[in-house]
Amino acid sequence: MDPYMIHTNGDGNLSPVLDVHVNINGKGSGLGKMKGRKARWSVKPSDMSDKTFNPIRAIVDSMKVKPNPNKAMISLSIGDPTVFGNLPTDPEVTQAMKDALDSGKYNGYAPSIGYLSSLEEVASYFHCPEAPLEAKDVILTSGCSQAIELCLAVLANPGQNILIPRPGFSLYKTLAESMGIEVKLYNLLPEKSWEIDLKQLESLIDEKTACVIVNNPSNPCGSVFSKSHLQKILAVAARQCVPILADEIYGDMVFSDCKYEPLATLSTNVPILSCGGLAKRWLVPGWRLGWILIHDRRDIFGNEIRDGLVKLSQRILGPCTIVQGALKSILRRTPQEFYHNTLSFLKSNADLCYGALAAIPGLQPVRPSGAMYLMVGIEMEHFPEFENDVEFTERLVAEQSVHCLPATCFEYPNFFRVVITVPEVMMLEACSRIQEFCEQHYHCTEGSQEECDK
Amino acid sequence: MDPYMIHTNGDGNLSPVLDVHVNINGKGSGLGKMKGRKARWSVKPSDMSDKTFNPIRAIVDSMKVKPNPNKAMISLSIGDPTVFGNLPTDPEVTQAMKDALDSGKYNGYAPSIGYLSSLEEVASYFHCPEAPLEAKDVILTSGCSQAIELCLAVLANPGQNILIPRPGFSLYKTLAESMGIEVKLYNLLPEKSWEIDLKQLESLIDEKTACVIVNNPSNPCGSVFSKSHLQKILAVAARQCVPILADEIYGDMVFSDCKYEPLATLSTNVPILSCGGLAKRWLVPGWRLGWILIHDRRDIFGNEIRDGLVKLSQRILGPCTIVQGALKSILRRTPQEFYHNTLSFLKSNADLCYGALAAIPGLQPVRPSGAMYLMVGIEMEHFPEFENDVEFTERLVAEQSVHCLPATCFEYPNFFRVVITVPEVMMLEACSRIQEFCEQHYHCTEGSQEECDK
Ligand SMILES: Cc1ncc(COP(=O)(O)O)c(C=O)c1O
Ligand SMILES: Cc1ncc(COP(=O)(O)O)c(C=O)c1O
Repeated sequence: MDPYMIHTNGDGNLSPVLDVHVNINGKGSGLGKMKGRKARWSVKPSDMSDKTFNPIRAIVDSMKVKPNPNKAMISLSIGDPTVFGNLPTDPEVTQAMKDALDSGKYNGYAPSIGYLSSLEEVASYFHCPEAPLEAKDVILTSGCSQAIELCLAVLANPGQNILIPRPGFSLYKTLAESMGIEVKLYNLLPEKSWEIDLKQLESLIDEKTACVIVNNPSNPCGSVFSKSHLQKILAVAARQCVPILADEIYGDMVFSDCKYEPLATLSTNVPILSCGGLAKRWLVPGWRLGWILIHDRRDIFGNEIRDGLVKLSQRILGPCTIVQGALKSILRRTPQEFYHNTLSFLKSNADLCYGALAAIPGLQPVRPSGAMYLMVGIEMEHFPEFENDVEFTERLVAEQSVHCLPATCFEYPNFFRVVITVPEVMMLEACSRIQEFCEQHYHCTEGSQEECDK
Repeated sequence: MDPYMIHTNGDGNLSPVLDVHVNINGKGSGLGKMKGRKARWSVKPSDMSDKTFNPIRAIVDSMKVKPNPNKAMISLSIGDPTVFGNLPTDPEVTQAMKDALDSGKYNGYAPSIGYLSSLEEVASYFHCPEAPLEAKDVILTSGCSQAIELCLAVLANPGQNILIPRPGFSLYKTLAESMGIEVKLYNLLPEKSWEIDLKQLESLIDEKTACVIVNNPSNPCGSVFSKSHLQKILAVAARQCVPILADEIYGDMVFSDCKYEPLATLSTNVPILSCGGLAKRWLVPGWRLGWILIHDRRDIFGNEIRDGLVKLSQRILGPCTIVQGALKSILRRTPQEFYHNTLSFLKSNADLCYGALAAIPGLQPVRPSGAMYLMVGIEMEHFPEFENDVEFTERLVAEQSVHCLPATCFEYPNFFRVVITVPEVMMLEACSRIQEFCEQHYHCTEGSQEECDK
């Protein structure tokens, strides 16, 4: 996810002056008169803030290259579908906000978990016979990010561990490590359309495992798990008695040839916290409305986890009430056509990009089925000039002014991620620049002469 | 603060079913085959969620009384100025939101600390020669609550302590204890218009003190510190080398006979994080827009604390972008008249309420100078039927259908807090019911016969 990286005033480099941490005000202040008092100024950031580490920022900030001045920059790195202006939200969505404003009813505090009426709307929107939901099963949050934060905060203690996908969305690790929760990475297999290596997943689970995070459809892979694969994941969780945090922020964002199955609809016994929000499907990530859906038909979470989530929500008091007030109309009135148009645009861009990159020697794109991304393997042995994916993408910026995120950001070296929300012309132009770049840097390796002769 | 308590679907009582935490899925699952795996389901909430304790909820939820069915309920307990409809926000504020929506420019992700343009607006709004501010000194947050959370999270480690006012806003303790930070309570003195007992404050500071929270104007007291008192507070902080978290959410909400001084304008050396937001002054608490202003002219926080705040803000990515987009117009275009009208209404209600309650034997209201509250001492010796303020306010609900928060919620027994944002007629009616209640329950104590004869 990229809001973490795109903006220059978020780069942490806020003050040009040197740190001065000692002895500014301590002298002559009667030192020693009182027991235990501080003799001098020394204000240090907490361990938690030290441990809050965002790999995307760290990697991208250290990329010290300038784009090629002769080519306009094309950024395929920003996981924000709104930046190019080609994917506006639906007018009904904007109108719903104006109506909420005009009503004058949504300016005050809502309950910290959200207005009851908004909880009911979300519950009924996601309710289905296989995974029933009521208002009491829903908690509204400040974006899906906070939904994930609350779920981790309620499920895991420092010293416990959680299982997260590799490659995977970087926020999981950022949040977990800041809370002193260990992360263990389970593998997704590119050759199996990024299905989970279930054996390896299961082998990582131990007594201290607080939950498994399953992200479907996936950022950064654009993959969508089949029903049978999801059932196998659930079987592991059931066998190991480990709850699942399902990050389903890209739920329903799948291309026409494939079906999205909410994880909870496939299980009657595994307790699942499903996280989602308006960000992606409704194309308004800045509005910061997310939710947690509590699926717990065997009452394994019980009141304790529910109460825990409610208590944690009281710390900062939920998402903006205007968006909450607009939720009913947003969920009910957004026309099917809107979702359809977004997806057919994404599908067409995905095909286009996949097709173009698959034809480039040295690259191995993996065809996506949903979400807004596509992962591309780099056959590093054919690009001996570059040490790794970070260098590869760095030079791609320097020479072709095309910016893709190195998948090291997602704990998956030697791949890069392409965002497919850009306008078609930019997508095409970017692909042809990537092609030029690869052609210029491709080297045959011994034993693969054949390929090079093609 | 009351969003924590007013709404019934936030009461944590989300599921009527019993907890079943054992052995639901463990049987016959091949137990023992793998080392360290879990044999049965056992999902417990984390220590952090257990430690997240909201005294207002706990106290109010345990008040098991019904209002008098013959009298309409009057709630003087809700710290939400919008609930009675008599204090709408200004039309310019609503219009600013619509303009932000119509522009289509504020749907995407903002930087996690806020749009640069919004940071600039806040900086220039609060900038003054004595306490200069630039965009780099501002961080936007999801309400003042999150501002406080981030400040505590960056300044204090588990095991350290912070100093908070008694009586004081309950969120400080809730947040701190959930993070394993100890709280020490310093006293406010009702007989000195709730000034801080500076000696006692200073005596509480030790090597582990991460910061002092100063809330001015005050919830629950409605008090406003004078310039000279603020200077004395700063002198303590300077002497002890302890930074200040200034909760100035009620900044500028002071009555005409008194002046609000932002703490940072009075110091050149004490590092101060000032927290504020749109909630109170602009009467839109639900919109969840808050800010941190970093005042650090001696560079004591340095880059480290600034970077820490930026990193922490990346966890959930800032407040709603539509509100951010509207901020410029909200700050620039809200007419002076609007602020003026709010304050003269509050002042008139405060006078009215203070006057009425001061005339009631057994009550000792403390005249407020700002914010939206007034604290009332209960001479418990004259109300022997009631054990404490909780029982007093409970019975006030049962008999008179008037709900005030017992100040035990603010760590200050034998007082109750009155919210003065209610319409004038309700204010009057409430006061006369309180009078009736007190008259019915007032008992003379020995040695105060005189008073009773009056
Ligand atoms: C997989 C995944 N989960 C969660 C999020 C966060 O969503 P939000 O912007 O609603 O916090 C993102 C954002 O990119 C994402 O890609
Ligand atoms: C003293 C004080 N600080 C902070 C807050 C929280 O403000 P916000 O609603 O912006 O989170 C309140 C709310 O009542 C308050 O009274």
